Amino acid sequence: MFTGLSAFPLTPLRDDAFDEAAYAGLVTRLAEAGVDSIAALGSTGSYMYLERNERRQAARAAVEHAGAIPVIVGIGALRTSQVQALAYDAQEAGASAVLLAPATYQGLGDDEVFSLFEDVTAGLSVPLVVYDNPGTTHVTFTDELHARIASLAHVASIKIPPVSTDPDAAAARVRNLRDRIPAEVTIGVSGDGSAAAGLQAGCDAWYSVIAGTLPAPALAITRAAQAGDFEAALAESARLAPLWSLFAEHGSYRVTAAIAEQLGLVAGYSLPRPVQGLGTAARVRVAEIIDELHLVP
Amino acid sequence: MFTGLSAFPLTPLRDDAFDEAAYAGLVTRLAEAGVDSIAALGSTGSYMYLERNERRQAARAAVEHAGAIPVIVGIGALRTSQVQALAYDAQEAGASAVLLAPATYQGLGDDEVFSLFEDVTAGLSVPLVVYDNPGTTHVTFTDELHARIASLAHVASIKIPPVSTDPDAAAARVRNLRDRIPAEVTIGVSGDGSAAAGLQAGCDAWYSVIAGTLPAPALAITRAAQAGDFEAALAESARLAPLWSLFAEHGSYRVTAAIAEQLGLVAGYSLPRPVQGLGTAARVRVAEIIDELHLVP
Repeated sequence: MFTGLSAFPLTPLRDDAFDEAAYAGLVTRLAEAGVDSIAALGSTGSYMYLERNERRQAARAAVEHAGAIPVIVGIGALRTSQVQALAYDAQEAGASAVLLAPATYQGLGDDEVFSLFEDVTAGLSVPLVVYDNPGTTHVTFTDELHARIASLAHVASIKIPPVSTDPDAAAARVRNLRDRIPAEVTIGVSGDGSAAAGLQAGCDAWYSVIAGTLPAPALAITRAAQAGDFEAALAESARLAPLWSLFAEHGSYRVTAAIAEQLGLVAGYSLPRPVQGLGTAARVRVAEIIDELHLVP
Repeated sequence: MFTGLSAFPLTPLRDDAFDEAAYAGLVTRLAEAGVDSIAALGSTGSYMYLERNERRQAARAAVEHAGAIPVIVGIGALRTSQVQALAYDAQEAGASAVLLAPATYQGLGDDEVFSLFEDVTAGLSVPLVVYDNPGTTHVTFTDELHARIASLAHVASIKIPPVSTDPDAAAARVRNLRDRIPAEVTIGVSGDGSAAAGLQAGCDAWYSVIAGTLPAPALAITRAAQAGDFEAALAESARLAPLWSLFAEHGSYRVTAAIAEQLGLVAGYSLPRPVQGLGTAARVRVAEIIDELHLVP
C-alpha cells in the first residue's frame, strides 16, 4: 500500500458544503485507473478546512468508492486530542491507513512534534504515513526527527518534500534518510514536478497531487520508474513541464482545482474560501495546457 | 475601547478541557486591575486550538466576568464560513468587538486576505480589530493591504507586529501606516518587549500578552506613556528585560503559561497538546524572574 502511486483527490465543495457526489466521482475515477492507493483528505483534499463531520463523510465516501484500492485518510489537526478523534473516525470509516502532518499555529519544537506522533500512534490499529509538508505546516523535519518518529509502532511510510533535480543530490538525500529508518518504512516523494527524479533517487512511492485528478500521466511515470525505465519516467515528466510551471506559479492546490473545474469533474469555486480559485487568465492557460499536453486520455 | 492597554488572557485547559473556573479568575483579575479592554481568545488564548463550543463558552465567561471592561473576542479560523459562525457566537455572547487574524494552511494572496475581511465585516454589528500576526499566520501585510482592509466598515483598529527599537524607525513605521488608514482607526502595538517603543512611536494601544496574566507592570508602562512620560515607560520596560529575554527564547505564549502555572492561577499543563509547557530549567528561571522583578504586587 505504501509503494507506487498514491493519488490525492480534491475534496470539492459546492456552496461551501462537501459535494459528496462529485467526490464519489473523483474517487471512482482513481479506482478505475488503478492507482496503488488513494490518499483522502490530504492537503490537496483541503483537510484542514473541513469540519469533523465533513471529514467523516469524506472518509466514508472514499472507502465506499475506492473498491479494492486501499484508502489512506489524513487526520491532521492542531490539537493532539482532535487528531486522536479524527484517527478514530478514519478507522471507523474503514481507512487502511492514516496520514498525519504536524499542523501548527504556534511553532512546534522537535520534542513536541515527536510527542504528537507518539500519542497518536499509541491509539492506532492501522499504519500511519508521516506527512512532511513544510510549505503548509512550517515544520522542518531533520533526518534525526524522522528516525525517532519512524521507530514508533504503526509508522509505515514517510512522505518527503520535493527532492533536488540533481540526481546525485536527490539520491544522497533519499539514502541519508533510508539509512536512519527501519527497512520496512517506505519513502514517498511529493512535489509532482520532482516525482520522476524522486523515484529514480530510490523513493518507493509517489504521493501525488495531480494523480488525484489526472491519474493517467502520473501512472505512466510511476509504471515506467517501477520497471526501471527512469529515462521514460523523466521524459514523461519533462513533457509535463508546462503543468509543473503552472504548479510553481500558482500552487498545485489551486491549479488542480481549476483543472477539475475545467473538466467538469467538480462544480465551480470548489475550494474553501478565503482560498480563491485561479483568475481568468490562469484558467485560460489551464485549459490550453490540458489540451496541448493531452492530459485527458 | 481601542486605545490604552488591551490584555490577552490565556484560555487554560485542565485535562484537555476548557478550565472555566481558572479562566473566570484570570478575567476577574484583569477587570479589577483596570485594563482598558480584555481580548479573549487571541493567540495567547489558544483560539486556534479550541472547538467552537469551547470558544463559545470562553467568550460568554469573558463577558460575564469582565464587568464594565469591554471584551474583544478572537474569531479567527481557516475557512471564511467558520469565521462567520464564530463572529455570530461572539456577538451572541456579548462581545464589544471581534479580533480577526487571517489564519492560513495554504498560503493566501492579498486579494484572498482582503476577501476574508470583506466577507466577515459585511455581517458584523460590532467593530473589528485586524490582527497582523505574521509569526503565527505566515501572512505579511503590506501597508497597502492594511489600507484596503481599514477602509471596510466596522474596522476600528489594527494590531501590528513589534516595532523597531530604533525610535526614528519605529515612528516612521507607525506614521507610514497612519497616513494610509482612516483617522478613526487606531493602531496598537504587539510584541511586549517593544510596547513602550511602540507607544512612544505613536501607537494608540498596546495589545499585550503579559497584561493578560500580570496586568500591573503593563499598566505602569501604558499609563506612563499615556501621560507623555515615555522615559518612565521605557525605563519600566527596560527593568523587565529579563522577562523579554525569556519571551524571545521560548515564546511569550509558553512563558506566560508557565508564569500563570507558577502563580497557581491555572492548573499545570494548561496549554493544548502537542504544545508543551516549558522544561524544568526554564521554569526555575521563570520563578526567579517573577521574584527578582517583583512581578506580582
